[in-house]
Amino acid sequence: MIRIGVIGGSGYTGGELLRLLSFHPEAEAVCITSRRLAGTPVDAVHPHLRKITSLSFESPSVEEIAGRCDVVFTAVPHGTAMDWVPDLLDAGAKVVDLSADYRLPLDVFEETYKIRHKAFIEAVFGLPELHPEVKDADLVANPGCFPTGAILSVAPLVEAGLVQRIVFDSKSGISGAGIAPSDTSHYPNLAENVKGYKLTSHRHVPEMVQELRRLSPEVKISFTPHVVPAIRGILTTAHVFVKDEFVGDIPDALEIAGLYEAFYKDAPFVRMVRDVPSLGGVRGSNFCDMSFEIDKSGERIVALSAIDNLVKGASGQAIQNMNLITGLDETAGLWFPGCAP
Amino acid sequence: MIRIGVIGGSGYTGGELLRLLSFHPEAEAVCITSRRLAGTPVDAVHPHLRKITSLSFESPSVEEIAGRCDVVFTAVPHGTAMDWVPDLLDAGAKVVDLSADYRLPLDVFEETYKIRHKAFIEAVFGLPELHPEVKDADLVANPGCFPTGAILSVAPLVEAGLVQRIVFDSKSGISGAGIAPSDTSHYPNLAENVKGYKLTSHRHVPEMVQELRRLSPEVKISFTPHVVPAIRGILTTAHVFVKDEFVGDIPDALEIAGLYEAFYKDAPFVRMVRDVPSLGGVRGSNFCDMSFEIDKSGERIVALSAIDNLVKGASGQAIQNMNLITGLDETAGLWFPGCAP
Amino acid sequence: MIRIGVIGGSGYTGGELLRLLSFHPEAEAVCITSRRLAGTPVDAVHPHLRKITSLSFESPSVEEIAGRCDVVFTAVPHGTAMDWVPDLLDAGAKVVDLSADYRLPLDVFEETYKIRHKAFIEAVFGLPELHPEVKDADLVANPGCFPTGAILSVAPLVEAGLVQRIVFDSKSGISGAGIAPSDTSHYPNLAENVKGYKLTSHRHVPEMVQELRRLSPEVKISFTPHVVPAIRGILTTAHVFVKDEFVGDIPDALEIAGLYEAFYKDAPFVRMVRDVPSLGGVRGSNFCDMSFEIDKSGERIVALSAIDNLVKGASGQAIQNMNLITGLDETAGLWFPGCAP
Amino acid sequence: MIRIGVIGGSGYTGGELLRLLSFHPEAEAVCITSRRLAGTPVDAVHPHLRKITSLSFESPSVEEIAGRCDVVFTAVPHGTAMDWVPDLLDAGAKVVDLSADYRLPLDVFEETYKIRHKAFIEAVFGLPELHPEVKDADLVANPGCFPTGAILSVAPLVEAGLVQRIVFDSKSGISGAGIAPSDTSHYPNLAENVKGYKLTSHRHVPEMVQELRRLSPEVKISFTPHVVPAIRGILTTAHVFVKDEFVGDIPDALEIAGLYEAFYKDAPFVRMVRDVPSLGGVRGSNFCDMSFEIDKSGERIVALSAIDNLVKGASGQAIQNMNLITGLDETAGLWFPGCAP
Repeated sequence: MIRIGVIGGSGYTGGELLRLLSFHPEAEAVCITSRRLAGTPVDAVHPHLRKITSLSFESPSVEEIAGRCDVVFTAVPHGTAMDWVPDLLDAGAKVVDLSADYRLPLDVFEETYKIRHKAFIEAVFGLPELHPEVKDADLVANPGCFPTGAILSVAPLVEAGLVQRIVFDSKSGISGAGIAPSDTSHYPNLAENVKGYKLTSHRHVPEMVQELRRLSPEVKISFTPHVVPAIRGILTTAHVFVKDEFVGDIPDALEIAGLYEAFYKDAPFVRMVRDVPSLGGVRGSNFCDMSFEIDKSGERIVALSAIDNLVKGASGQAIQNMNLITGLDETAGLWFPGCAP
Repeated sequence: MIRIGVIGGSGYTGGELLRLLSFHPEAEAVCITSRRLAGTPVDAVHPHLRKITSLSFESPSVEEIAGRCDVVFTAVPHGTAMDWVPDLLDAGAKVVDLSADYRLPLDVFEETYKIRHKAFIEAVFGLPELHPEVKDADLVANPGCFPTGAILSVAPLVEAGLVQRIVFDSKSGISGAGIAPSDTSHYPNLAENVKGYKLTSHRHVPEMVQELRRLSPEVKISFTPHVVPAIRGILTTAHVFVKDEFVGDIPDALEIAGLYEAFYKDAPFVRMVRDVPSLGGVRGSNFCDMSFEIDKSGERIVALSAIDNLVKGASGQAIQNMNLITGLDETAGLWFPGCAP
Repeated sequence: MIRIGVIGGSGYTGGELLRLLSFHPEAEAVCITSRRLAGTPVDAVHPHLRKITSLSFESPSVEEIAGRCDVVFTAVPHGTAMDWVPDLLDAGAKVVDLSADYRLPLDVFEETYKIRHKAFIEAVFGLPELHPEVKDADLVANPGCFPTGAILSVAPLVEAGLVQRIVFDSKSGISGAGIAPSDTSHYPNLAENVKGYKLTSHRHVPEMVQELRRLSPEVKISFTPHVVPAIRGILTTAHVFVKDEFVGDIPDALEIAGLYEAFYKDAPFVRMVRDVPSLGGVRGSNFCDMSFEIDKSGERIVALSAIDNLVKGASGQAIQNMNLITGLDETAGLWFPGCAP
Repeated sequence: MIRIGVIGGSGYTGGELLRLLSFHPEAEAVCITSRRLAGTPVDAVHPHLRKITSLSFESPSVEEIAGRCDVVFTAVPHGTAMDWVPDLLDAGAKVVDLSADYRLPLDVFEETYKIRHKAFIEAVFGLPELHPEVKDADLVANPGCFPTGAILSVAPLVEAGLVQRIVFDSKSGISGAGIAPSDTSHYPNLAENVKGYKLTSHRHVPEMVQELRRLSPEVKISFTPHVVPAIRGILTTAHVFVKDEFVGDIPDALEIAGLYEAFYKDAPFVRMVRDVPSLGGVRGSNFCDMSFEIDKSGERIVALSAIDNLVKGASGQAIQNMNLITGLDETAGLWFPGCAP
């Protein structure tokens, strides 16, 4: 049994790690920390976990955590994970970091997040569908929620050299904004509404650029996120404009389908769907559902992806990475469907 | 491995049985029927099950089903289950019937549903928290969704002889109305709304009366259901008026809590919660969350229960019953938390 | 043109007063106060009012307000209105108070709100359907949102002497909780949910008791509120139990309909509806839609009412009262339908 | 008093015309037709209009309608309006057609809608902000809902010659799909979801092309619509890519703001907002709220617009057109704010 620690368990991703681990046959949460809540039963903060976990929040030292745990998830804000990660590694734990602290090269990180990195280390970018080397890592940088859905939706097209420019227009559930109430999450402001935000400047863009330029160095990327009246889920609409040489000569649907199939042949959690992907179809699950349609303009392919931002976009993908770095089956504890309807 | 058949798998309860069975370590769906959809892959109707099940809908004979399955769930409308149940039993299968056909005595059934019963048999009422004899049954009548939440919310008070009258005011998600679009489920009609229906005449009342009068023969019961803008879940508010001799003399909160604890000491899926129960806390799970508050008027106790209508209110409870009649642990495949947030 | 002042205009009821006054042919908002926001344009806080109002928040003296305004609405919290109302009256303004400060007798107010009243005066309870004397008042105490819907739903039955006990089970949109974000209004907590609160102790109960016992001194009243996923609206389900002498002998539907018709013959905003009332049907409007159904148990009548909590439950009713005390037509500026769908 | 007829009043746009006309001081609905519902009171279909209208549906001849009405709104499906419009004009009525039948040149219409036009006439495209000639028309073709929001969001940029390519990604409430229940409008399918549809082939594209190419002949346009969990409203995100000569040299925010201000200086219903536009801010109103942000990439401007699809996107704009063609003030009966929160 793999022993799991969670640093920072009072938020949505922490609660979701515990929910998902309750399904896992070979891993078990043994320690969940919160300085503020030390001593409080976990189910006082996450009432859905009542009877499922008997843990209370703790505030142990790094050494103690590393001693009691094989793998540690750091589910703390960016800028805080760097206080934990190197020491945890030194003390012998493997780490999956859910923050942004290790996703980007040092300079890009510091420019994007406007803070100085206190403890930079190279990590593997934990999108297993593009990074098979995850399985050999001790430190995995779990991707952002928007990059996960965005990158997966178009990677096969980009790798095939078809793409000049992508406009990602994403629609996210509000749980991505966290457990604390705000004007944005205030029901009268979000219900019956759609709200664009950080229209041209979201911090997740550099992850998209990094991963897609690895596949095609010149590809241009724009991204605009929105929140929609949904608790969970991200629907990404990728408006993919092909290179000049393919304008009017886009491969047909069968060929495009073949690109996706080949690219994701070893990716259990990617599903190409019949119609269009739906947030309901992935709700609570680790699947990424996708489809595409070729614009008869001859210039554009519209690709769609749906993920659960708290699962494939955060805690589920973290467990997928944990499975890989501990030699378990990639799907262990994660092979279940979305909670539809 | 227990082999499971599902008669009538194209609706929400059929899909939910397959979703839940995907978590089950000792049971497996092997046959799912639909006359109309025979030959169609299950995931064409239930896209969230893509990659999870490779079954297609079939339309086999009763004998074939009984031969291939140990337990059969009948997830068809009332009036139709009776066409299947006796023959399945005769052919050697155990049956959990999700319809209303075997929940009530013959005369009450016929009066309530205004149809003649073609094949009446005695069955056990499949609310395991009140019916330990489920474990010896070959035919279990799975309760209605409203009765499940309503009965559980007040049974300890009723059994203790405290109760004169109960007004159940229930708020249900719309999935209880099924997979077919209707005026009621039309988004512009349900969103931002609450709708009372069958205000004084819902067919689930006789189940409530039957079960609660077993515990206290004189108790008076009123019930009014509503639909609210939610996909899943039933929140039942039970306004419990005590007998004259307890007016002004209601046992205190500690004593009442003791009644609940004692009554449900062997009921794994009942949880008394700290604050008030929430649909989010049980979403997708088999738990029934409950709380109560004593009115300082001295006349009334308000008891609340929350269930997921498709799980504890239908398919989850059916699997709980299946576990019991096959000698499995009551919680097998069902011991996971709600999908909150 | 009646000149209107609004004390405390930064919340939902203040914004709604301005929205509704924009329809009014004979009244005009001339002053809207907020100490905190003095100098800020109103449309910075209420962006839907952009181009509709050019007012900015002010913080003038009572004397100045009374000089500039014929009628003043106090839209401040309970306990604060009493700082304004007597001085406004002394300075010659008429006042419609939207707070709770003048709805109850002194002793009941102090016991209910647990504060000492600093400036008690007798006011008329501003439910015009029950209080024709509103038209002669200088100070009107605008009722609470829940009492408005609850009292109207059953008043004809109570006045007819039929009723022994009423259980009001109300379902409210969240705008009643105000413009400030909270755990309850956090979208992930409210969406797809229903939440009971103050199950037995809501402060609006004394208003219901006061008004209904005027009609029938012995009537017993219980009340439990819930919030539902809706911005606006209150659906009240009144479970009305008849006196012993009417058990099994409830007047038939035609007679009951006659009671409602007679009681509300001069009430323009009351509508008896064909099916059941809907929040959509009254959204944004001052109507109170109602229906009833007689339980064949012979003991109970279920009466339903739907109002918009911000209109008939607050700002619309305040304008209705303002119309009456200034001699305008009761429906002036309010005679428009709900925003359905 | 302008006398109004509505051909086809049983749907959402018909109901909305009546709702909006209830605010109008100088126009009055006198005839509303429905062959299927002739004789039925209007408020049986549109219960929110109870007490507001006493009309019943009728099925009179064209001549009778033209005799009784000064202006007729045709609120029937495309392909049906053409059966009415020429005869109404011949009989002397002015017509605002809410269908698609007269929005496009004959050949474009027939190619887009795949039907043969039976009665083509030149009409004015009824987007008054771009077509001042509306005021002289006898036949106005009221624009589609998506084109209204899309065109308005970018017209000043396009006219200024800045734009090479626009990707419109629109998020619509479901009322645009009409009053009849469907799989798409089924609450469990839409709630907590976002659904892309007609990803590359929506019939509203030719309207966008027609209007924007009038302003800049070479501009390239892509459009993908989605439905979101909202009853009313369209939020359009316009990803505007500038011409090569402006890459890295986009005019600054002040200059862009100046373009919008100049373009819309005579457009009462256009509002530039401080933050981002919100569906709540325009709900139920005829305003189009807009904002923009310049991407520091130097290639893109993101422009947002919010409208209520049933008002500025349909019935409100129709009344705005009616005001213009009858010589009334453009804002008559429409000068009220959105129903926020």
